[in-house]
Amino acid sequence: MVKKQDKSDIVVIGGVAAGPKTAAVLARRLTGHKITLFQKENRISYGTCGLPYFASGDINSFDELTYTSYGVPRTPDFFLNSKNFEVRILSEVLDINRTKKTVTVKNIDSGETFIHGYGKLVIATGAVPNRPPFPCPASTVVRSFTRPEDAIHFRQMVQTGQIEKVVIIGGGFIGCELVEAMAGMWGIETVLVEKEPQVLPFILDREMAERVRHEMVKKEITVMTGAEVEKVGIGQDNRPEVHIKKHTVLSADYVFICVGVHPESSLAKECGLKIGSTGGIEVNSRLQTSDPDIYAGGDCVEVEHFITGKKIFLPMGSLANRHGWVIAENICGHKREFPGVVGSFLVKVFDLNIGTTGLSEQAAAREGLETGSVLGSFPDKPDYYPEVKTFTLKLVFEIKSGRLLGLQAVGEGDICRRVDVFSAFLQRKAAVEDLLHFEHGYAPPYAEALDPLHQLATMVIAQRGGTSFLKPAFDFDGFMEHNGLTDVIALDVREPEEIEAHPWRIDGRNNVQHVNIPLNDLKKRLDELVRTREIVIMCRRGPRAYQASVILKQAGFHKVHVIGGGAQASLL
Amino acid sequence: MVKKQDKSDIVVIGGVAAGPKTAAVLARRLTGHKITLFQKENRISYGTCGLPYFASGDINSFDELTYTSYGVPRTPDFFLNSKNFEVRILSEVLDINRTKKTVTVKNIDSGETFIHGYGKLVIATGAVPNRPPFPCPASTVVRSFTRPEDAIHFRQMVQTGQIEKVVIIGGGFIGCELVEAMAGMWGIETVLVEKEPQVLPFILDREMAERVRHEMVKKEITVMTGAEVEKVGIGQDNRPEVHIKKHTVLSADYVFICVGVHPESSLAKECGLKIGSTGGIEVNSRLQTSDPDIYAGGDCVEVEHFITGKKIFLPMGSLANRHGWVIAENICGHKREFPGVVGSFLVKVFDLNIGTTGLSEQAAAREGLETGSVLGSFPDKPDYYPEVKTFTLKLVFEIKSGRLLGLQAVGEGDICRRVDVFSAFLQRKAAVEDLLHFEHGYAPPYAEALDPLHQLATMVIAQRGGTSFLKPAFDFDGFMEHNGLTDVIALDVREPEEIEAHPWRIDGRNNVQHVNIPLNDLKKRLDELVRTREIVIMCRRGPRAYQASVILKQAGFHKVHVIGGGAQASLL
Repeated sequence: MVKKQDKSDIVVIGGVAAGPKTAAVLARRLTGHKITLFQKENRISYGTCGLPYFASGDINSFDELTYTSYGVPRTPDFFLNSKNFEVRILSEVLDINRTKKTVTVKNIDSGETFIHGYGKLVIATGAVPNRPPFPCPASTVVRSFTRPEDAIHFRQMVQTGQIEKVVIIGGGFIGCELVEAMAGMWGIETVLVEKEPQVLPFILDREMAERVRHEMVKKEITVMTGAEVEKVGIGQDNRPEVHIKKHTVLSADYVFICVGVHPESSLAKECGLKIGSTGGIEVNSRLQTSDPDIYAGGDCVEVEHFITGKKIFLPMGSLANRHGWVIAENICGHKREFPGVVGSFLVKVFDLNIGTTGLSEQAAAREGLETGSVLGSFPDKPDYYPEVKTFTLKLVFEIKSGRLLGLQAVGEGDICRRVDVFSAFLQRKAAVEDLLHFEHGYAPPYAEALDPLHQLATMVIAQRGGTSFLKPAFDFDGFMEHNGLTDVIALDVREPEEIEAHPWRIDGRNNVQHVNIPLNDLKKRLDELVRTREIVIMCRRGPRAYQASVILKQAGFHKVHVIGGGAQASLL
Repeated sequence: MVKKQDKSDIVVIGGVAAGPKTAAVLARRLTGHKITLFQKENRISYGTCGLPYFASGDINSFDELTYTSYGVPRTPDFFLNSKNFEVRILSEVLDINRTKKTVTVKNIDSGETFIHGYGKLVIATGAVPNRPPFPCPASTVVRSFTRPEDAIHFRQMVQTGQIEKVVIIGGGFIGCELVEAMAGMWGIETVLVEKEPQVLPFILDREMAERVRHEMVKKEITVMTGAEVEKVGIGQDNRPEVHIKKHTVLSADYVFICVGVHPESSLAKECGLKIGSTGGIEVNSRLQTSDPDIYAGGDCVEVEHFITGKKIFLPMGSLANRHGWVIAENICGHKREFPGVVGSFLVKVFDLNIGTTGLSEQAAAREGLETGSVLGSFPDKPDYYPEVKTFTLKLVFEIKSGRLLGLQAVGEGDICRRVDVFSAFLQRKAAVEDLLHFEHGYAPPYAEALDPLHQLATMVIAQRGGTSFLKPAFDFDGFMEHNGLTDVIALDVREPEEIEAHPWRIDGRNNVQHVNIPLNDLKKRLDELVRTREIVIMCRRGPRAYQASVILKQAGFHKVHVIGGGAQASLL
């Protein structure tokens, strides 16, 4: 099966995820080929994604990230003996000569440089932190959080009691993971500063992101959104200070700069390989660069988005591993493709599981897609079963075609299952109707008889049939404005005990009249409602409000609206 | 959107899952139509699937299964007021007159019968327990477990201390759920008797089912497989006695007969509707019977299997609910299809989560499909993260086409996610290669960088490339015979500490030579192995054994085999 290459030497640049994966698969497939991996750092193949959990104390020792799961350190010897390829650490590739098919390598220890030939070259140089868009001092306690040193340094300081207050600049994935890492085990006073009006911008729509903020606030994190950093300085007491525009100065023991990363594509650029508009190396679906003898994968390349067809930069350890396999297969002469991505993410913030796949409504709008959405909240098993946990899902679809665009999920319940299934549907370019045919595994310890994805699909169908599901919002004024409402009856169809336990009242508003009528009494008490006014209906999770809207419409009411997701999903 | 029907009366027969769902959706969509649901029992729309969890004590009161999640009882009044249709309980439909379009109904309370007309009729009469294939006394403590009365009666007896020993006849889903229900909270001495050589026959392949048996045995359940019941009698002390052929007599306080159910299609049959070979009512993809004015759904119909194209009987509450929606939509004039099933199941047995979707290897073989399979064991998150749980997956595919056929999953970790994703792929008729493109949600608290489904797919590809993954087995002799082995070197490539903690030795066998060489030392210690002998390699989960097989082959060994899933999956 293995096709021998004419040029036998294979060189891999980069030793974290895509690089070692490529080399390991090649070493299994090929014999008689010399495979050499050059890694600039002295560490190789560590679990980068685990760094926040080492910082948090969930993982005791950094070694756990550098050892195999059976306790053997991932040293050059390990790769030679167990994986059958050569790793040269502290070996920085300085340039690539595509004509001569050589790389120039500098031994960082000795300072010497040497030339190494290749038949096929694999670039897996990863990503590097963005330079912050504000002045920032050179300081060991004002730093990004992308390298092992960053995590090790923080752990040393926190374990010796030197850190009581931290400011995290940037509320993306790493920023959010660090929030939990700071406040969870160490009990550090933590401030999260984000320029955009929400955490996890571009990933979650605002009303979903607000749930994450609520969780953080509940855990006593100070969350400052819409807060632009002017500069970071060093104060009189030698502690870093974060200056926020038109706002305040935050003094802290440690400042994390989490303002994103960009592809480390400089080597590729310098040797004339095509670089995409994202800054990532351009590759075809077989992960070949513009030079057919050079492949590239992992965080240094750009990838095609399945839905938009556009090239994007999506640094993810999971994609890097899949890239490694595809590159190795192609070098061995098998035609394998990496067709693209939908963008699936998971992140844990305290007790909340947060996930998304595909496009948010914001992101889809930026692509010029005309979107619809529905939002629902669900138990993760039947309510009669013990220990029910809940979550909120938002489904985004294209109105014209019914094509699925994305799913966002936030809650304490099992969201991973829904995100993964939806990703599989996105990959197969499915439409809303396809979700109706999804056959989920059902048993009371694990699921309800109807999967949340079925329920979301039927909500879309009800919406098409004329049901007005109100657009979710994160504050009351926004909610009214967003939905073009001014003067409303807020009809709560829950039972009195439910309302008592979790009231839903917008007090002190002249333009809101509260009416509580349990669903089961609604048909008998219709005369308590005014037909000419806009009626906004709510229950615990949504289905009763929808049912109430049907009862009202069948009774001749027309201005009837439903809050999808109900009190459980409401931020009002 | 709603198209009015000419004949306005709609009659629904059956009040558990598909019936109420159909009526509720119809009542929302249609106005000016009288919708009447006849239910023989006095209870309606209870959570049948929750009965084992009421029996177990997980659910405190039976009411929880009959009330809505917000505490309102599902009475006829509830359906009239909240759902807008009429329910008549204790109303048995005696016959259907298709010419006159009427049903004859008997009021069970008064004994009176009456005639009720219909424009469209929906049959949702569910399933009834099979008659046991052995003599069985009429006794209140020898009974099936399908109706609320069965569960209520058991709870009353167990709560008053009358049950110390139980025999469960039948190791299918209900039997397995009852095993946990008996032994968990109540600590009842429990014997499970199954005619086939394994529990969950026809659902799981034997080596997967053996894991379930192990778990039961660990929890002190007596599991008798290959044990055919001759008769159930009543002993001298008035206690039931289960007589097992060529075996023993088991005396108990209570005997559950869990020998399956069959479609309750007698009404349909008597009025001349087509009945399929499974005994279920024949329906088209819109769930219309052979009479276009009569629809049927839920456990009384047969459904098409997506993979085999054959009609099967698959009683599941989740399908019944989806049927209800499809029927209602079609009656309203919308074209909706229920295209078929793949067969997804989940069941919990103590700490084990068990799931399957599609065909087992046994089932596929019965369909004449030439199948391949791979078996792997996986952590549910990276090993460096706290609280890792594990599970074993078996993937079944068609050799010729590479088409995915099924997935079986057993373990303490999160299997639901994998079963659901695989079901979505089966629904879309995917092949092994499609799994490589699956983009799972990845973050250390939830997943490894490569999803188990990717890893299974690459195992299939390695198998095609010549790697000999041994067929899994459940005892050593079977293992050797199954794989055509006689005289082997058992090479364990784990670290010494791992071997000490979980030894893997087949002692007292002359034909097995044990050799322990950690993977990292293998290249240096090849001369400890004999090239001419068959070498069976094992590690903890499989990947190291696979890597070791590559090292041996590259060193000129040819008789090299890998145990997929390793010690974690091994039953030897």
